Amino acid sequence: MGRTADYSDERCSVAATLEVIGDPWTLLIVREAFFGVRRFEQWQASLGVARNVLAARLKTLTAHGVLERETYSTRPLRQEYVLTAKGHDLFPVLAAMLAFGDRYVYGQGREPQSYTHLECGRRFEARIACAGCGKLVSPADLKHHAHPEAITVGAAFELADA
Amino acid sequence: MGRTADYSDERCSVAATLEVIGDPWTLLIVREAFFGVRRFEQWQASLGVARNVLAARLKTLTAHGVLERETYSTRPLRQEYVLTAKGHDLFPVLAAMLAFGDRYVYGQGREPQSYTHLECGRRFEARIACAGCGKLVSPADLKHHAHPEAITVGAAFELADA
Repeated sequence: MGRTADYSDERCSVAATLEVIGDPWTLLIVREAFFGVRRFEQWQASLGVARNVLAARLKTLTAHGVLERETYSTRPLRQEYVLTAKGHDLFPVLAAMLAFGDRYVYGQGREPQSYTHLECGRRFEARIACAGCGKLVSPADLKHHAHPEAITVGAAFELADA
Repeated sequence: MGRTADYSDERCSVAATLEVIGDPWTLLIVREAFFGVRRFEQWQASLGVARNVLAARLKTLTAHGVLERETYSTRPLRQEYVLTAKGHDLFPVLAAMLAFGDRYVYGQGREPQSYTHLECGRRFEARIACAGCGKLVSPADLKHHAHPEAITVGAAFELADA
């Protein structure tokens, strides 16, 4: 539903991530989960997305292990969706998109949400750093290695599900 | 073309960025631009995307100021598309997606592309850092501020185009 591209023949981790979060509304559903939304009606109210689309996206995100169902009432049975560790690891994607939209669409001082970095007290703006040494990184700091023997995105998902 | 969601009524910089790069294929077109692709036929060959879709995406990315046209031959007139400064600022989004796909879809050692951080010599894996102090940041390090008076994504684009 709502898929208009198939990246399964790509050999690329960007395309692989788009297979998980690239559907319309999906990343905004994850955004709301970071803000504490856990229940179908809350997502429906905050996003105004069609119920069938929301149901399909929650199902896909659960199948991909980004969200997991938790029972919060047994009589009647009621479940909510919470971010897994994998889901929390989408934070860098959201933070990077937030910084781009703040800078280039809204402009400083007009952001709909802003964040303070508690440790330094400054307004938070995301940059990319190297996990190994912690230093800020730009594309010129990187040497690229192609691995043409790599499997496709579709094959990688099959392997992960096996 | 290929739009199946309209985020213009949202008040959110993540949604704003999705308006720029959320269409199918768009982010992979930008990815190829980072790898040095500049010409229509090169994108077509490397992505295998339908020509009408590619033409529409290049037009949108140019309208949004992510790519700009450069003339490389005047007789006959031939133009190519190069990343602007705004386009280069999509690097954090790509780097964050790359890290997620490497980790959760491909798994370490099976990445289709990898990068070495030249300064420290380690395999590059993207983390989010604070632009102000340079330290690595996780969601727990941030204090959220809502600005409910903010304009919608659609209004922000109109303002930016004015």
